[in-house]
Amino acid sequence: MAQKLWEKNVQVNAEIDRFTVGRDREMDLYLAKYDVLGSMAHITMLESIGLLQPDELKVLLEGLKKIYVSAERGEFVIEDGVEDVHSQVELMLTRDLGDVGKKIHSGRSRNDQVLVDLKLFTRARLKDIAESVERLFRVLIAQSNRYKGVLMPGYTHLQIAMPSSFGLWFGAYAESLVDDMTFLQAAYRMCNRNPLGSAAGYGSSFPLNREMTTRLLGFDSMNYNVVYAQMGRGKMERNVLFALASIAGTVSKMAYDACLFSCQNFGFVKLPDECTTGSSIMPHKKNPDVFELTRAKCNKLQSLPQQVMMIINNLPSGYFRDYQIIKEIFLPAFDELEDCLQMSTYIMDKIKINEHILDDDKYLYMFSVEEVNRLAADGMPFRDAYKKVGLDIEAGRFTHGKEVHHTHEGSIGNLCNDRIEDLMEKALSGFNFKTVEDAEKALLGR
Amino acid sequence: MAQKLWEKNVQVNAEIDRFTVGRDREMDLYLAKYDVLGSMAHITMLESIGLLQPDELKVLLEGLKKIYVSAERGEFVIEDGVEDVHSQVELMLTRDLGDVGKKIHSGRSRNDQVLVDLKLFTRARLKDIAESVERLFRVLIAQSNRYKGVLMPGYTHLQIAMPSSFGLWFGAYAESLVDDMTFLQAAYRMCNRNPLGSAAGYGSSFPLNREMTTRLLGFDSMNYNVVYAQMGRGKMERNVLFALASIAGTVSKMAYDACLFSCQNFGFVKLPDECTTGSSIMPHKKNPDVFELTRAKCNKLQSLPQQVMMIINNLPSGYFRDYQIIKEIFLPAFDELEDCLQMSTYIMDKIKINEHILDDDKYLYMFSVEEVNRLAADGMPFRDAYKKVGLDIEAGRFTHGKEVHHTHEGSIGNLCNDRIEDLMEKALSGFNFKTVEDAEKALLGR
Amino acid sequence: MAQKLWEKNVQVNAEIDRFTVGRDREMDLYLAKYDVLGSMAHITMLESIGLLQPDELKVLLEGLKKIYVSAERGEFVIEDGVEDVHSQVELMLTRDLGDVGKKIHSGRSRNDQVLVDLKLFTRARLKDIAESVERLFRVLIAQSNRYKGVLMPGYTHLQIAMPSSFGLWFGAYAESLVDDMTFLQAAYRMCNRNPLGSAAGYGSSFPLNREMTTRLLGFDSMNYNVVYAQMGRGKMERNVLFALASIAGTVSKMAYDACLFSCQNFGFVKLPDECTTGSSIMPHKKNPDVFELTRAKCNKLQSLPQQVMMIINNLPSGYFRDYQIIKEIFLPAFDELEDCLQMSTYIMDKIKINEHILDDDKYLYMFSVEEVNRLAADGMPFRDAYKKVGLDIEAGRFTHGKEVHHTHEGSIGNLCNDRIEDLMEKALSGFNFKTVEDAEKALLGR
Amino acid sequence: MAQKLWEKNVQVNAEIDRFTVGRDREMDLYLAKYDVLGSMAHITMLESIGLLQPDELKVLLEGLKKIYVSAERGEFVIEDGVEDVHSQVELMLTRDLGDVGKKIHSGRSRNDQVLVDLKLFTRARLKDIAESVERLFRVLIAQSNRYKGVLMPGYTHLQIAMPSSFGLWFGAYAESLVDDMTFLQAAYRMCNRNPLGSAAGYGSSFPLNREMTTRLLGFDSMNYNVVYAQMGRGKMERNVLFALASIAGTVSKMAYDACLFSCQNFGFVKLPDECTTGSSIMPHKKNPDVFELTRAKCNKLQSLPQQVMMIINNLPSGYFRDYQIIKEIFLPAFDELEDCLQMSTYIMDKIKINEHILDDDKYLYMFSVEEVNRLAADGMPFRDAYKKVGLDIEAGRFTHGKEVHHTHEGSIGNLCNDRIEDLMEKALSGFNFKTVEDAEKALLGR
Repeated sequence: MAQKLWEKNVQVNAEIDRFTVGRDREMDLYLAKYDVLGSMAHITMLESIGLLQPDELKVLLEGLKKIYVSAERGEFVIEDGVEDVHSQVELMLTRDLGDVGKKIHSGRSRNDQVLVDLKLFTRARLKDIAESVERLFRVLIAQSNRYKGVLMPGYTHLQIAMPSSFGLWFGAYAESLVDDMTFLQAAYRMCNRNPLGSAAGYGSSFPLNREMTTRLLGFDSMNYNVVYAQMGRGKMERNVLFALASIAGTVSKMAYDACLFSCQNFGFVKLPDECTTGSSIMPHKKNPDVFELTRAKCNKLQSLPQQVMMIINNLPSGYFRDYQIIKEIFLPAFDELEDCLQMSTYIMDKIKINEHILDDDKYLYMFSVEEVNRLAADGMPFRDAYKKVGLDIEAGRFTHGKEVHHTHEGSIGNLCNDRIEDLMEKALSGFNFKTVEDAEKALLGR
Repeated sequence: MAQKLWEKNVQVNAEIDRFTVGRDREMDLYLAKYDVLGSMAHITMLESIGLLQPDELKVLLEGLKKIYVSAERGEFVIEDGVEDVHSQVELMLTRDLGDVGKKIHSGRSRNDQVLVDLKLFTRARLKDIAESVERLFRVLIAQSNRYKGVLMPGYTHLQIAMPSSFGLWFGAYAESLVDDMTFLQAAYRMCNRNPLGSAAGYGSSFPLNREMTTRLLGFDSMNYNVVYAQMGRGKMERNVLFALASIAGTVSKMAYDACLFSCQNFGFVKLPDECTTGSSIMPHKKNPDVFELTRAKCNKLQSLPQQVMMIINNLPSGYFRDYQIIKEIFLPAFDELEDCLQMSTYIMDKIKINEHILDDDKYLYMFSVEEVNRLAADGMPFRDAYKKVGLDIEAGRFTHGKEVHHTHEGSIGNLCNDRIEDLMEKALSGFNFKTVEDAEKALLGR
Repeated sequence: MAQKLWEKNVQVNAEIDRFTVGRDREMDLYLAKYDVLGSMAHITMLESIGLLQPDELKVLLEGLKKIYVSAERGEFVIEDGVEDVHSQVELMLTRDLGDVGKKIHSGRSRNDQVLVDLKLFTRARLKDIAESVERLFRVLIAQSNRYKGVLMPGYTHLQIAMPSSFGLWFGAYAESLVDDMTFLQAAYRMCNRNPLGSAAGYGSSFPLNREMTTRLLGFDSMNYNVVYAQMGRGKMERNVLFALASIAGTVSKMAYDACLFSCQNFGFVKLPDECTTGSSIMPHKKNPDVFELTRAKCNKLQSLPQQVMMIINNLPSGYFRDYQIIKEIFLPAFDELEDCLQMSTYIMDKIKINEHILDDDKYLYMFSVEEVNRLAADGMPFRDAYKKVGLDIEAGRFTHGKEVHHTHEGSIGNLCNDRIEDLMEKALSGFNFKTVEDAEKALLGR
Repeated sequence: MAQKLWEKNVQVNAEIDRFTVGRDREMDLYLAKYDVLGSMAHITMLESIGLLQPDELKVLLEGLKKIYVSAERGEFVIEDGVEDVHSQVELMLTRDLGDVGKKIHSGRSRNDQVLVDLKLFTRARLKDIAESVERLFRVLIAQSNRYKGVLMPGYTHLQIAMPSSFGLWFGAYAESLVDDMTFLQAAYRMCNRNPLGSAAGYGSSFPLNREMTTRLLGFDSMNYNVVYAQMGRGKMERNVLFALASIAGTVSKMAYDACLFSCQNFGFVKLPDECTTGSSIMPHKKNPDVFELTRAKCNKLQSLPQQVMMIINNLPSGYFRDYQIIKEIFLPAFDELEDCLQMSTYIMDKIKINEHILDDDKYLYMFSVEEVNRLAADGMPFRDAYKKVGLDIEAGRFTHGKEVHHTHEGSIGNLCNDRIEDLMEKALSGFNFKTVEDAEKALLGR
């Protein structure tokens, strides 16, 4: 806890400083690489409009590349007494190159600098997320195909209802990820516009070439209107978090199912030992800790858009320092979701399924609808079939083979996983990762 | 308030019935037209696979069309004692046509029936929303173009900072709607998949032709996996509400700005008289009630995704009655947002702006950065220029013409509204409203 | 959906009127009785300071009592074209009594009038809620006492862990309601302060006697500061909704448990038939619809504080029309929670429990810790006991009587339900319902 | 970001370990002191029932006291490879004292151990918060008294409406804190019950004396029912966060007002220089960064209950690992709120107010209601007075002295700050800090 301002010997300004810097120095580490990239594009443009000499550009680009490499290696640190990533980069440049280092700030403001950092960071992390989602998707499809023949009970109201299958269960979560990918793409598009050049949110009297930085950084377009570029702060984060929440919702639900199904009262699945905890004295117990934590983290992630909204809501247009606090909500969310995706991929790949669930007679009645339909298909009027099955059950003489013959699209016998894969391919092809990668490489001279 | 179950003379079952039906009879009116459309597609398919006779199909289609027309005219009602829209439609059909009316339920369940109703309803309402958003967009662009020459103060931290313009202000909200449209489209795509044929979430032993109903109803594709089709319940609503929340966020912020700017301490804008309230005794007072209500409604709308999440979160897969409650959150949201869009469009079209804001000297200092840049552009070293301007201000001799020369993309002098309009066109072209319209017309024989 | 403002023949003002009135006429019915009470106290005070004649007071009080009675009987309606409850009451008075009817508004504003209405309404409904909570509490304690001897498995991580009992299960939810009651009381206290006299939030130049209206209406104290009295709008609703959310959280969790335990894979409880739905063809199926709806409604209720916060957050002090929208979130919440409490009370009273759960051998291992402790108590070193039990289990020769001997406070053998009842009594005694009742009766001359 | 599990050379178990430990080692530092206190009470009780020898108790208590002192000094660390605070304490004890160190775990489980840690921690931090709230309250009352004579405009709809005063403004936030304190006390009471002895949520076969630990730790009572003791996990945190949210809401609103009023368009207040940032070139600019950050942090705090609810909602009874994640939401919240309270206290103490606001003629009309009332009080019929003032304003001849004569309770001329202070005293007297302090001192032998 903080010392009290009214206690003797406390330096007021130090306390205020601690309060205002907050977690920024920790948070800004996420942005280091992207801050450098943004500066490289910016100064390249500055030179093109005569605000920087070609030789100045050359040494600055070299200096920035070195910082980029150190950030890439995880060696970038924000030194004590340095407020944020922007100051640290400038400090390193001026130490190396002298006063020319300060020229990277001409024609922009901290506001558009952090805006472009956030966009570049988010764009990169959305790509990571898309790849992790695809990886989980592939595992789910593979498991769905592998176990398409293994039946399990399907529940409605958590009451045993109808035959289902592991093919359906794994496949359902795969298809859920397709829809999530659609939102991820919308988030990516919103994110992939260039705010650089909007300065403090009202533009600049310098003849900036925003088209050029847009191209250099591989953005789809710019945030044209400079007031809107600033207005995107908070909004971009909220909407990206919407997209992450959609994925988190899918993963949380999958984890919930798996935890429930690994309860001894179900016994449908067995999670990998290394992802459970137990006790030698309770050998039956396999606590699904990893999936419980996955579920809780994903549930927390789902609440983040609301948290951002509470901060940005009812603020008029224009920059406010309030936006700083969003960073600590937003920046770590990607790692958290990635961790959950990774753990889920691992578990869903290793999960053991029970191929003998239906040996237990309590699941017999779920074939009652099947039997009615079978009799009806054989010519008995539906009502009579229904009545007969009802009476058979009542009399305890209902039987049914433990198999189903569902043939329509998306059913147990016809999972359409290839069609679902097509949808995923289509979703993935809507991202322009290659354009971005090429632009960033060109900028870094790689 | 409900009577107490433990009070004498209360019929327990009536109370339970009231509780379980809840607001469903009111809510289901939203779905009537779409329930009929879904049934028309379903029975057309049933006939194609031999589960209905051609003549049965004919009379049923005729009967359903009549019900559709009555719903279109606002004449459809759910009668006392009838539980929901599905029962009401069946009742009307059997009254008219006898027992054949019941055949519309073969091969499906209430679960996929309400799923398809919700998808068709939502698809239609998203189209309305898209059109209303476009309308507001057009007004904002027009106002931005009209007032591009009128300067206003730009604020950061709500402190007077830099020159801005009404061109920028109107245009910023227009561009914000472009990003919102991207999410609306993602929602539309997620929504535009066919769940029909998933039955109670585990498919059916009938040889349904889901491809056919998908085509008949103009869906992009189906929700293939039947377990996922059911899992979309709640998820679709949440994600559509994400998209609406994005629009609502833009409108709320715009309303906030306008209310603030119409405060006498700013006096930047004047809202149309018919959208304000006042008092003869306080003639200076123009309470911006309509925009305050718009703001509050939009803020409420922004909280709806969280509300849905609280209901669906931590439920395992499979249907639960819990999903019924989502209807009362979800279905009325479209009208509420439409109302807000409509009011906003009206006000932003009629709003009067103050063209003489800068006559007030308190805004003079916001030109200080301009002046520094001007001196620097004229050759004075930046630091010297900065110092000179600082000293001039201190000495009270700072002056500056009340004009700016910003030329870069998206700045006061170069709004790029045509580019923003291009982005909107592109966003709008991503919807397939025509395909849907054609399919629905064909189904209705129009 | 609303007609479009830009369509021909639409009367703009009618549309704006529809938008601004919104659901107020529906919502204000909740407030009718309380609006009358507030007016009765107000005019009694006005007379005492000479702003009303004794004979005027007399006829006005008579007129208001009649309106109160009609509201009590559910006969009060807001007529077409009348905007809200305040106008309706005035209209009825002036119809009956002539111009004197208008005098009830002297010395106050719509703002403090609606504030006091909300406080009186909420105070009354919190009493209803407290009584319904108590009723559920009594049923839970009774069931806990009744079934204290019936063991059931206790789960951790939803893995079978240790012996528990129905005595513990029912009792846990009873004790949960005690803590909820503590928050309900905090809400009641916050609510039970008089805002009347704060006018539009800045007081009045009339020599109002606020102490007198405070006493007449049975309030604990007044909201002294008039700016704070207005600032309580939204805040009071949020905090009361916090308290309701606490109760809703308890009920939702109880409903979740009961739904899970009524799943055939558990089979621990059987819900009353009239609260489940099923099908003749699936006789095993008892869909727990009533408790699922209870759960969903309670989960929705838990999200209401956040919804209110989204509206009130970041609004400066002073009245805004935004507050109107809170009414439609807040006012119906009491009925919804009452319904859920009532259904829960009914179900928990009628619920059948399975007294033979432990006959199933899968629950045997949950006695392993008991056995270790027993051996240790008999003198075997703990580690040896632990090892022995582990080896017995491994070798399949573990046995244990299906009973436990827990004696400490709050354990299976010593539920302490009487102590929990004491806590509830103490919580209930903190409300001053009697004072309020007496004050309202005196005001109404009953 | 984490390495990928499927990449070569990654140790799966290390990754899983990193994931499951999460931020626990960081979070558990908050709990160290309280974990020690809980253990001291627990072993004292164990000795009393013969499960520990008197000499063992003696050395263990000595060892624990040493650890407590190191935690007090901020020297307690969780070593690499040690999972949590409980393991670290045990490790330190066994290092010092040998195997007897392990005996502190007899008769309890990690579950009730962390439950009691959380309760003791929260109880202590709620005391800190209560004291900080009181400190802010005192400053606000002092400022209200000091500036009771200085008028400012009162706004409704952010339109200039009526005369208000700084006395009212400061006092309103003071009174708001009184209501917040009521909820803080409810949270404190809920928190101040002893869960120790509930073991894993199902009690224990040991003859624990829970009454004794309750007394030793200074708890009001115990959480009797052991299932409820466990069920309090998550619920206690949510409800305590409700109480913090109430305070945060007050502080956020106050900060919003102050930021708005320090805008040059208002110019009502001037924040202390050390709490604003500016620029030599824009001397007029005083960015209220500290209050903006305060506002944002408080708005984030207000969203925490919802975040906890998303995690705990729809979990059945019994422990789940999900609860671990709540720690990272809950534990840091107290410091964040304390920081905000401290900054607010500092600023509100140093804030400069503008005593000449009303010199600006734009505020004249807010006296129109005063004038009407004055004329009416002088005998002119209200309607005539109203009409006359309206006409005067229209004709531009309205004048009014810049003073008001409000006398009723809570109005400009009669703030009732002493009554508000009485309410605060009463609220504060409801906490039993002394009992707790005495118990903790006794336990520590101080």
